[in-house]
Amino acid sequence: MRLLKEDRNVRVDSVTIGIDGKPVIIAGPCSVEGRDQIIEIAKAVKEVGATMLRGGVFKPRTNPYDFQGLGLEGLEYMLEAKKITGLPIVTELMDDKYLDIFVDKVDVIQIGSRNMYNYALLRAVGETKKPILLKRGISATIKEWIMAAEHIAKAGNDQIILCERGIRTYEDYTRNTLDLTAVPIMKRETGLPVIVDPSHGTGRRDLIEVMSKAAIACGADGLIIEAHTSPDLAVSDKEQTIDIETLRQLIKGLPL
Amino acid sequence: MRLLKEDRNVRVDSVTIGIDGKPVIIAGPCSVEGRDQIIEIAKAVKEVGATMLRGGVFKPRTNPYDFQGLGLEGLEYMLEAKKITGLPIVTELMDDKYLDIFVDKVDVIQIGSRNMYNYALLRAVGETKKPILLKRGISATIKEWIMAAEHIAKAGNDQIILCERGIRTYEDYTRNTLDLTAVPIMKRETGLPVIVDPSHGTGRRDLIEVMSKAAIACGADGLIIEAHTSPDLAVSDKEQTIDIETLRQLIKGLPL
Amino acid sequence: MRLLKEDRNVRVDSVTIGIDGKPVIIAGPCSVEGRDQIIEIAKAVKEVGATMLRGGVFKPRTNPYDFQGLGLEGLEYMLEAKKITGLPIVTELMDDKYLDIFVDKVDVIQIGSRNMYNYALLRAVGETKKPILLKRGISATIKEWIMAAEHIAKAGNDQIILCERGIRTYEDYTRNTLDLTAVPIMKRETGLPVIVDPSHGTGRRDLIEVMSKAAIACGADGLIIEAHTSPDLAVSDKEQTIDIETLRQLIKGLPL
Amino acid sequence: MRLLKEDRNVRVDSVTIGIDGKPVIIAGPCSVEGRDQIIEIAKAVKEVGATMLRGGVFKPRTNPYDFQGLGLEGLEYMLEAKKITGLPIVTELMDDKYLDIFVDKVDVIQIGSRNMYNYALLRAVGETKKPILLKRGISATIKEWIMAAEHIAKAGNDQIILCERGIRTYEDYTRNTLDLTAVPIMKRETGLPVIVDPSHGTGRRDLIEVMSKAAIACGADGLIIEAHTSPDLAVSDKEQTIDIETLRQLIKGLPL
Repeated sequence: MRLLKEDRNVRVDSVTIGIDGKPVIIAGPCSVEGRDQIIEIAKAVKEVGATMLRGGVFKPRTNPYDFQGLGLEGLEYMLEAKKITGLPIVTELMDDKYLDIFVDKVDVIQIGSRNMYNYALLRAVGETKKPILLKRGISATIKEWIMAAEHIAKAGNDQIILCERGIRTYEDYTRNTLDLTAVPIMKRETGLPVIVDPSHGTGRRDLIEVMSKAAIACGADGLIIEAHTSPDLAVSDKEQTIDIETLRQLIKGLPL
Repeated sequence: MRLLKEDRNVRVDSVTIGIDGKPVIIAGPCSVEGRDQIIEIAKAVKEVGATMLRGGVFKPRTNPYDFQGLGLEGLEYMLEAKKITGLPIVTELMDDKYLDIFVDKVDVIQIGSRNMYNYALLRAVGETKKPILLKRGISATIKEWIMAAEHIAKAGNDQIILCERGIRTYEDYTRNTLDLTAVPIMKRETGLPVIVDPSHGTGRRDLIEVMSKAAIACGADGLIIEAHTSPDLAVSDKEQTIDIETLRQLIKGLPL
Repeated sequence: MRLLKEDRNVRVDSVTIGIDGKPVIIAGPCSVEGRDQIIEIAKAVKEVGATMLRGGVFKPRTNPYDFQGLGLEGLEYMLEAKKITGLPIVTELMDDKYLDIFVDKVDVIQIGSRNMYNYALLRAVGETKKPILLKRGISATIKEWIMAAEHIAKAGNDQIILCERGIRTYEDYTRNTLDLTAVPIMKRETGLPVIVDPSHGTGRRDLIEVMSKAAIACGADGLIIEAHTSPDLAVSDKEQTIDIETLRQLIKGLPL
Repeated sequence: MRLLKEDRNVRVDSVTIGIDGKPVIIAGPCSVEGRDQIIEIAKAVKEVGATMLRGGVFKPRTNPYDFQGLGLEGLEYMLEAKKITGLPIVTELMDDKYLDIFVDKVDVIQIGSRNMYNYALLRAVGETKKPILLKRGISATIKEWIMAAEHIAKAGNDQIILCERGIRTYEDYTRNTLDLTAVPIMKRETGLPVIVDPSHGTGRRDLIEVMSKAAIACGADGLIIEAHTSPDLAVSDKEQTIDIETLRQLIKGLPL
C-alpha cells in the first residue's frame, strides 16, 4: 500500500490543502453555462472568500438527453475566469481521451462519484502528477474508497484530495445522507486531506451552511460548494445551489 | 398536528434543554451493572461536567439469552446515584407495565430505537407529563420520526427530546451511520430539542469526541454518551464506551 | 436456542403450514372497514381458493391522525366472516392489553413489522399457545429476525410462521425490496414455515402475481395477499390491493 | 427514448435471448486462470447444458494488488475454449482501449456493476453492433439502470441484455440483496431481455440453485452462474462458485 497513513498535504498553485493548510473553499456553479456566467460567478465567489473555482464542463447525467455540459468550450471559459480572478480551477474528467488536455489546463482533476470504481480512469489519472479530487462513490464503503485512492497512488500519484459527498440510503428528505464520520476516518486511514460537499451531501440550499460548520468542526480540510449568482436560473442542481450572499455568510461563519 | 414548528424547551429539574438552554451532557454506562458501579460512574461523570446520568436497567437485547439488565433493582441503584450526585436520571422503558414506576422515579423516560414504532408505548408515555427522550428508529425516515413524536404529542405530552443515534446503512466500518443533518432538520420541523448519541451513532470509542464537536456545531442541544470508569469491563457496548478522562477532554473541547 | 433448525409445522385449525403442508393462501383487505365489507370479501376470497382470511382491526399508522382501524368492533365482524366461510382469521396485535381477547378469538396473531423488536410483546405472545405470524422488521437483518422468533420460542411458543414482507432500501420504484432469498435462509436457519407478503413487498398491484410465483418457486410455505372486492375504494393500501379476479388467476397459476 | 417498451430479442450466434427464446444458461469461472482450466470448464458446463461460456480476463478488483486477470492472454484461451465447445463467450470490458479487440473476438461484451455509470464506456459500446450484457450498478435505482441502457441505445445499439446481480443493502448474511422484482419491472419498462446472476446476487453456493428457480419463475430470460470444476481452488469468488454436478442439478431442475 502506498497510502501509509502518513499525513500528506496537497499543493494546488499556492494553496496548501491538508495538515499544514487552512480549510479551502471551492465554490462555483454545478455547470459552466457560458463565458459571462462563469466569469461573473468566479469574481463573485472570490470576492466573498472562495479560494478555488469549481464548474462542470463534462457532466455525467443519468438521462442521456439532458444537458451534457459545454465540453472543451466550457473549459476555455473556466481558464478565462481563472486568468481574471487568479482562482485555481477544479473540473470533472469522465473520459480519458481528454486527459492530456486536462493535465495541461486544469489545476485539480475531479473524479466524480459515478467513476470512483472506474479503475481504468483511476489508473490513467494516477499516471499524471496532477492533484486529483476523488469523490466517494454513491454507495461506496470506506474500504472501497480507500482502495480507489490506492488505485491512483499505486500508479504513482499521491496528490489526492478525498471528498465526502453523501451516500445513498433509504432517507429521501435529503438527496443523500452526508456521512461526516467519514472525515476523521479517511484522514486517519489514508493521511490524505478530506473535504466535504454539502451541496450533494444534502441536496437542499437550506442545509448547506449549517452542515458546512459541522464538516469543519470534525476536521474537514475544506468544502466544495455549488454557488451561483442566480441559483434559480442554474441549468442543473439548482435546489442545492446557494447564492453569493449565502456563501458570504457561510464563509464568515467558519472558524477559518 | 400538535407539533407546530414552534421552538420548545424541555425542563428536567433545573436543567433547560432546547432553545433557551445550553447543550446538555448526558453520560453514564450502557447498563447499570451494580450499586457500586453506577454510584462510582455517576460521581465521575458529574465531576468532569456531565449534567445528567444515563444507565439502562431494562435492556432491549437482540439475543434473548444475553444480559437483560437488572430491572427494578437497577433502578433503585440509579436513584441512589441521583441522590448522591444530584444528577437527573434517564433510563429506557420497554414495557408499559412499568410505566407508573417510571413516572414516579425517573426524570426522563427513554424510548429506544427498537420501540420508535411501538405506538401503544408512545401513546402510554404521551399520557404522562414526564419528559421523554425519543430515539430515532434504526432505519426511521425523518417523516416517520416526526410522526412518532406526534403520536406522543397527540396523547398530550410535548415534553419530548429527540435523539439522533445513527441509521442503518450498508456501511460497516461504523456501527451505524450518524446522520447529523437530521439535527437541523428535526429542530426546524418540530421545534423540539434534538440531542445526538455519538456512541451508538459510530459504535467506536475513537470517533466519539470528534463527532460530538460536529454535533454541537450543527446545533445539537446536547449529547448522550456511554462512559464508564472501566470501559473494557462494561457488560455491554464496551467498544463504544469511553473512559472518564476521555469524557473530560470531550466536554472541555466543546464550546458550551 | 429453542429453534434448533428442525423442521416444524404450524397447525391452524385443519390447515397445516410448513414441511408437511401445501402452500397456504391468506387473503383479505388491509383493513376491516365494516361488517358487510369483510363478509363479502371473505366469501369472495374463499370462492377463488384462499385458505385463510386476513384483515386489520388495529392498524399501526405512521400518522396518528389516519384511520386507526375499527378495533374490537372490527374483530367481531371478522368472527362473523369466519363463521360464514369457515376461514381461519389472521389479524395484528399491537398492544398486549388485548392479548387475552386475541387468544380467545383469533386463529393466528400477527406481529407486524413495526413491532418485530418489541420484545415485551414478543414475550407476551410467546407465553400463549397461539400460532404467531411474525413479520420481518422494516430493516431487520436475518440474524435479528431469527432472534425475534427466538424471543417468542424462549417464552414457550414455537408455533411461529415467519413472513418476508420486503426490506427498506434506497430503491423507490417499489415500496420495499422483496428479499426472496430470505425464504430459503429462514427455513434452513429456524425450521419454521416461511410465507411471503408480495403486497407490502412490492407495493404495486401489477407485481403481485409474478412475485407470488417466484416466492413459491423458492420454497415459500404460503402467501399473504391484500385483496378486496373494490380495491380502489379500500381505505388503506389500495395501490397494493388486488381485485378478486386477479387473486383467482394468481391462485390458479401456482403449482399448488 | 430509443427503448420504447417494445419487446426485443438479442441474438448471439444461433442463440435467441428474450421474448422468443428459452432461458439461456451462461456458466463458467469468475476468472480465466489458465488455458487448461478454461477449456476443461467449458467442456464441463457444456456437457451439463450451459449454452454460453463466461470468464473474466480483465477483473475489476477493489484492491489494486489483487489478481487483475490474465488480460488478452486469457481472452485467447477463451477463444480456444469456444472453438472446442462451440459455446459463445461473454467477458467483461473495463477499458475502451480494448474495445476493438473485444468487438472482433467476443460474442457478448459485459459491462460490470462498477461501470454502469461509466457513460464514456457505455457510449463506446453503444457505437458497436455487439450484444452488450449490462449489469445493474451496485446500488443503482431502476431508473438509473434504465437510463444506462438508454445511454447505449442512444449511441445506436439496442442489442442489450440486462442482468440483475443484487443490490447493496444493510443485510450482510448474503453478499448482496437479490432484487428479483427488478426482472418483471425491467422487462416491462425496456422490452429488453433480463437475466439473473444468483452468484453475485447471493454470494453463497448453497443459495444459487433455489434462487435460480425463483428467477426463472418470475420471468428471467436466463441465468449467469459462476461454476468451476474445482470451486475451492478458484482464484476469485470461490464462496459463490458451484461445482459442475450442482450446475447439472440446477439446470435439470429448471422448467426450460
